[in-house]
Amino acid sequence: MVLTGNGVSTFQQVPVRAPFEYMEQFMRDVFVALGTPTEEAAVIADVLITSDKRGIETHGLGRCKPIYYDRIKAGTLNPRTNFEIVRETPTTAVVDGHNGMGHVIAKRCAQMAIDKAKANGLGMVVTRNSTHYGIAGYYALMAAQQGCIAMVGTNARPSIAPTFGVDNLLGTNPLTFAFPTDEEFPFCLDCATSVSQRGKVEQYARLGKPLPPGWVVNQRGETCTDAQAVLRDLIAGRCAFTPLGGLGEETGGYKGYGYATVVEILSSCLQQGNFLKALSGVNEEGKERPIELGHFFFVANVEAFCPLADFKRHTGRLLREIRASTRCPDAERIYTAGEKEHIAQEKQTREGGVMVIPAVQKAFNTMRDELHLSQYRFPWETAPVPK
Amino acid sequence: MVLTGNGVSTFQQVPVRAPFEYMEQFMRDVFVALGTPTEEAAVIADVLITSDKRGIETHGLGRCKPIYYDRIKAGTLNPRTNFEIVRETPTTAVVDGHNGMGHVIAKRCAQMAIDKAKANGLGMVVTRNSTHYGIAGYYALMAAQQGCIAMVGTNARPSIAPTFGVDNLLGTNPLTFAFPTDEEFPFCLDCATSVSQRGKVEQYARLGKPLPPGWVVNQRGETCTDAQAVLRDLIAGRCAFTPLGGLGEETGGYKGYGYATVVEILSSCLQQGNFLKALSGVNEEGKERPIELGHFFFVANVEAFCPLADFKRHTGRLLREIRASTRCPDAERIYTAGEKEHIAQEKQTREGGVMVIPAVQKAFNTMRDELHLSQYRFPWETAPVPK
Repeated sequence: MVLTGNGVSTFQQVPVRAPFEYMEQFMRDVFVALGTPTEEAAVIADVLITSDKRGIETHGLGRCKPIYYDRIKAGTLNPRTNFEIVRETPTTAVVDGHNGMGHVIAKRCAQMAIDKAKANGLGMVVTRNSTHYGIAGYYALMAAQQGCIAMVGTNARPSIAPTFGVDNLLGTNPLTFAFPTDEEFPFCLDCATSVSQRGKVEQYARLGKPLPPGWVVNQRGETCTDAQAVLRDLIAGRCAFTPLGGLGEETGGYKGYGYATVVEILSSCLQQGNFLKALSGVNEEGKERPIELGHFFFVANVEAFCPLADFKRHTGRLLREIRASTRCPDAERIYTAGEKEHIAQEKQTREGGVMVIPAVQKAFNTMRDELHLSQYRFPWETAPVPK
Repeated sequence: MVLTGNGVSTFQQVPVRAPFEYMEQFMRDVFVALGTPTEEAAVIADVLITSDKRGIETHGLGRCKPIYYDRIKAGTLNPRTNFEIVRETPTTAVVDGHNGMGHVIAKRCAQMAIDKAKANGLGMVVTRNSTHYGIAGYYALMAAQQGCIAMVGTNARPSIAPTFGVDNLLGTNPLTFAFPTDEEFPFCLDCATSVSQRGKVEQYARLGKPLPPGWVVNQRGETCTDAQAVLRDLIAGRCAFTPLGGLGEETGGYKGYGYATVVEILSSCLQQGNFLKALSGVNEEGKERPIELGHFFFVANVEAFCPLADFKRHTGRLLREIRASTRCPDAERIYTAGEKEHIAQEKQTREGGVMVIPAVQKAFNTMRDELHLSQYRFPWETAPVPK
């Protein structure tokens, strides 16, 4: 707790709801105060709050301080982005982000790929020396909203063990697709190529529940289910996530491992960027260093193939046929990709914003106080404690 | 057993090895005898034998009779291909295969996408009214061998249930990638987006072993492990394969379901083709009808991004770093995608060809006898029965 011009900053022991717009405005001002140009700060805040709106709490507000604010303060992340186009053709480009803000770099690259697709049918942009860019789905959805289909992805800090291996090597490496449809929301598959990820392990740890077998593998090649121990051992590199499909080959783990490798290659080899252990974020002396990620953005203009309205109707019919099929007796319903995120957004909008957990309340107070953004007073500082 | 001009056609109770070239030549002559033009028959035979060479027995010789020969005889598959380009731009094309031979259609589409990529950086061709085209990897490898990266795929007969659903709806829908490297063989991930597939269930049935839990789901939403019962129920639509990641959401099944849906959309919606249950191969009266599949071929020319040699070296280094990482104590080694297929090809070439199981020996005798290709005499007709 820190004294500010506005009085004592407090936070609640329970999640408190906060309006999207207020939180977005605050994050914009955080990055401006850190030296990011206004319009770039607006991009970062928009990407982060979009994650919360879509119900993906792991990639939104909660990351503002540890992944961006703290790294800028530590000097391992540039708040001002130097966006350099290294090579360009009418359909392709290679971009160097020079360790600037990943959201800013990625949004500009995605729009480049979309513009190239609009002009020439297809566009593909690859990026090196970028940084963590939030949800991959944001950039794929940009394309879907502009009448295009998209495949995007990024590498990330080493997390996944290869099939028959135990080292955390590959990032959780999302392979993300979005397509426009005739429904209220686009199809959007935005997921890691691992079975699970750190954010979910944290949830199990909070609930004191054992992890499902097969999520995490230790150095002896065995599955670990102690969530608390896994959180410690992941940092120390003593355990790793399994690829989608799980341990070994019997349940198809080599497929998830293969897709994680595809993403690692597309994120580094066309752009001659770093990969695998070189993305661990520590140098040989164990000190923090920049995590220079690579991304890829492939976009196709639907109109190069068929009228957009036809594609949207065809895709919508396909998705509705899936949803209308026979469900498991114990299941409520069948969803298609992007639907749960759409439902989450509608629900939160009705209810007045995003639920902010105590740890994030505290982090936001700290940023506000350290940056002297005393015009902000968060709902958890004024809300009555719920019974 | 049928009498032919050459005498009695016999087959062995055990697998017998046969030279690749002889089997390929025979299949070429089979399709020529069925009415396929010589150069197109050569393509079909090459795709099929390539599958066997790579150790993928499920998609090679064994399919020659049931999937192609029998369907041509039944009139549901055209031995002569009418390849129609419906729409074309310098980077894109939509092709109608008019229910011709899938291998011929797909190879020509893949080469179109490669040529477009070579000329303009990127190329993407989508296909409708095609038919079963063998291994998807064949077409991705064409691109890798020509200095390109590729993502290809196809829909297929309904097999996979969506997460929380029980109907077989989505095809086993491969999402396949290939990249050139500086090693002897390209990276090639060629796999279905289901946990498993029919060919593997057949292997378990032959061995009398129960299936691993989570491969197959029945109409009650439960996993089935009786391999014999599953083979019956799959045909009757009373059970379905689970998506990669398995049943429900806990082990990421919604991700595999998502990727299967991506492939279904890319295989039908840009080209306004059939999807899901419309690909079941039977009409409303329960009679066999053409299975009109869709494919997609996306290719990028590496040289549009960086020198090909740099890409190959970078990718090779990445793959070698994975292989050199710590292995599970009980594992022999770590493989990268395409490596096992390369090893299988080298081994079989050393050993003199492909092992042909009794059921396939019998099928080949039948085709030979029915088509009066009496110049062929297979190794299983002359080989001594091994002890």
